[in-house]
Amino acid sequence: MSDVDREARTEAEGRRDFLKGALVVGSAVASAGLGAASALAQPGPVPGTSNHYYVPATDKTVHWGYFSKLLKPLVEVNSGDFVTIETLTHHANDDAERMVKGDPGAESVYYWDRQRKGVDRRGAGPLQPTLFGRGAGEGLGVHVCTGPIAVRGAQPGDILEVRIIDVKPRPCANPQYKGKAFGSNAAAWWGFHYKDLLTDPKPREVITIYEIDATGERNWAKALYNFRWMPQTDPYGVVHKIIDYPGVPVDHRTVQENHGILKNVRIPVRPHFGVIGLAPSEADIVDSIPPHWVGGNIDDWRIGKGATMYYPVAVPGALLSAGDPHAAQGDSELCGTAIECSLTGTFQLVLHKRDTLAGSALNGLEYPLLETQDEWVLHGFSYPKYLAELGANAQSDIYSKSSVDLALRDAFRKMRHFLMTTRGLNEDEAISLMSIAVDFGVTQVVDGNWGVHAVIKKSLFAGTP
Amino acid sequence: MSDVDREARTEAEGRRDFLKGALVVGSAVASAGLGAASALAQPGPVPGTSNHYYVPATDKTVHWGYFSKLLKPLVEVNSGDFVTIETLTHHANDDAERMVKGDPGAESVYYWDRQRKGVDRRGAGPLQPTLFGRGAGEGLGVHVCTGPIAVRGAQPGDILEVRIIDVKPRPCANPQYKGKAFGSNAAAWWGFHYKDLLTDPKPREVITIYEIDATGERNWAKALYNFRWMPQTDPYGVVHKIIDYPGVPVDHRTVQENHGILKNVRIPVRPHFGVIGLAPSEADIVDSIPPHWVGGNIDDWRIGKGATMYYPVAVPGALLSAGDPHAAQGDSELCGTAIECSLTGTFQLVLHKRDTLAGSALNGLEYPLLETQDEWVLHGFSYPKYLAELGANAQSDIYSKSSVDLALRDAFRKMRHFLMTTRGLNEDEAISLMSIAVDFGVTQVVDGNWGVHAVIKKSLFAGTP
Repeated sequence: MSDVDREARTEAEGRRDFLKGALVVGSAVASAGLGAASALAQPGPVPGTSNHYYVPATDKTVHWGYFSKLLKPLVEVNSGDFVTIETLTHHANDDAERMVKGDPGAESVYYWDRQRKGVDRRGAGPLQPTLFGRGAGEGLGVHVCTGPIAVRGAQPGDILEVRIIDVKPRPCANPQYKGKAFGSNAAAWWGFHYKDLLTDPKPREVITIYEIDATGERNWAKALYNFRWMPQTDPYGVVHKIIDYPGVPVDHRTVQENHGILKNVRIPVRPHFGVIGLAPSEADIVDSIPPHWVGGNIDDWRIGKGATMYYPVAVPGALLSAGDPHAAQGDSELCGTAIECSLTGTFQLVLHKRDTLAGSALNGLEYPLLETQDEWVLHGFSYPKYLAELGANAQSDIYSKSSVDLALRDAFRKMRHFLMTTRGLNEDEAISLMSIAVDFGVTQVVDGNWGVHAVIKKSLFAGTP
Repeated sequence: MSDVDREARTEAEGRRDFLKGALVVGSAVASAGLGAASALAQPGPVPGTSNHYYVPATDKTVHWGYFSKLLKPLVEVNSGDFVTIETLTHHANDDAERMVKGDPGAESVYYWDRQRKGVDRRGAGPLQPTLFGRGAGEGLGVHVCTGPIAVRGAQPGDILEVRIIDVKPRPCANPQYKGKAFGSNAAAWWGFHYKDLLTDPKPREVITIYEIDATGERNWAKALYNFRWMPQTDPYGVVHKIIDYPGVPVDHRTVQENHGILKNVRIPVRPHFGVIGLAPSEADIVDSIPPHWVGGNIDDWRIGKGATMYYPVAVPGALLSAGDPHAAQGDSELCGTAIECSLTGTFQLVLHKRDTLAGSALNGLEYPLLETQDEWVLHGFSYPKYLAELGANAQSDIYSKSSVDLALRDAFRKMRHFLMTTRGLNEDEAISLMSIAVDFGVTQVVDGNWGVHAVIKKSLFAGTP
């Protein structure tokens, strides 16, 4: 073991100190940087108490670009258990030196030579023969998702509560950048701005690399450099003229890095998960990009530390996965992505059985609901159940049918339902209250199924006896 | 003078204590509750210093439902002068007992008997013969606007800065409700919810009356009662089946008041002006409802105390008016209105001449820009210059052509321009920053020309040397 290896190893162990007592999940424990022996030395689940599981991100624990009810769960947990989940950004290969190198988990996921990929399928598209020749899965879905986690006893109609206990950036494993973490922002062809550029060349895709303080002492990110996307030839020989397949390694000899950009600009860091969701029931394999009624790629920056999400369960076991980690994002995610930055989250999962919901705020919940200390946030989409609503071609049609107007209408209907069921208001009370005290914002306009969120302050009801 | 009259008089004088030294504007001083003698006793403008003018709201100082560059200014002020402007809600007659009675200014504006209206024209429509028979101006425009105020030396191409120094609710003048202020929320036919009601009867319009603490000690509003709009016969004999003309007195013998609504719900008060704007240049008389590039009915609740607005000047003198006062509103103003509540604002007006703008944040500003202590807020509209963009029928066509998507596109373009001109960013820097650190929200979807605002925190640039 070289000194560098030893240092990296020590750091990897150090950042998992809080793991003591956690049950490491997945067959790829070694490649996650933990010795198999230490994993085996963990105590087994203890009935009647809360257990804490640790799910590293490796080529064996991630599914890339899709959700599927057919995936075998990595682990089955009890309601009340804690799960720490490593998530990897699907943009790490935009700068592999800073986001992959020296990190055994990321290296296993991103592995790609002339013969083999660490993770072959990327997206919900066909494997072989492929439609567009981009690669297995066709990039019809892009997010590296860690999971799924099954919850014992979960059945359709139940609600899964996901409490986000902690969120931490994944430190760079390259000793050259010790103490730092990095993220990538892609201003890409699916961005809202793409056909509306002012300056030449038009159109163009631009990657901007950001630096984050992994120690958490500095709560802002800064830009390091950007480059215009140039055609990239992947190890299989396919040329990617645009960003059409996730995880294509960028050869930095082919791009022009512009340093000294966004000088002195400090981006407030608000780490969160773009994707947390359950497996949908309507199809066997579902593109990870459009968000839907059981969650997925909601891309709301409020889904961070201290927040609680409630998801309707659609399939037995619920099948929770997380991915698309972000260091910062604005409402609308205008150019197509956030600061895409690998994060590790600790979650407590609490199952609410359908027959216990009567009279509660969760009764009849048919969308992903967010609770923060001060607010409730309801998520509306252009097509809330697009897989059922748009028929056989839903997974392609959704990309041409969305509008903010439709998402606003859905958010309005959900807020009305929320106020009428959880606060016992009649429709006239609910509608007046929405106009004078609920804020509607643009969540994202880049995920196929566009989103509008409705925010209501809990303090409105502080006078309730 | 009866005891009740005397008490009301004392209160009116008390609430204008801060007026000492101000120059009262308008020929209707007496009807605003101030003796003509005291008005005449005020000192005249003092050259070389900042003067403070007071503009009461009376039948002589308001224009109802429209902007016009042809209106004679009430007063011409210098750059740097202060103006206190009384604004009246156009929904006061929803409950005249609480929002008109005993208030000389409001009574003069709302006066309407079989022969005469205090203010005849309400809206930009024809006077006589009317198109739809609703009344003079046809209600094509609804806001009671106080003004216009001319700013000496203002010319097209200049920017008028409006600093909102103070905002106070207008206390109820009916001694029965001493210390309180009131507002009305109309869930009306132009609301986003109107064709999407769940419960019968459908469709319906509903008025909700809210109570606000006029002393400012309690920072929340509460609902008093609501009623379904029933056909109202105005003093001229015209029946208003729906809310199709502003200021129609509601006969409370014809409606069913529902009390005990929204029990224990506390609405955070955020007083602001729905309408502050300059006279447009493109037409002689312009409907007050659609917001546009020189301001008007923006309906952003952030336009309150402590905020500063910047408006491009389109006509000589700028011609500033204010109205549509709100006690509280949510982003989207979903049901058609806010808590419509008369307010008095104190403003400082600062003129920035075109030839001083080069290199400043105001150079080339072509939209209403908001600055708060912590943020810049840019206002996008479906059609930013709809009067020029939509041609001869712009004032009617705008009501069928708007979408949130279009307003988002406009807000994106404005934010890009702002970042490139005021921060010297190139387009790639600006677009990346917008995606990771700018929040886009739905301002309103009920004003014909729909709005999306873009919020950027000043702290992003705190590191700038």
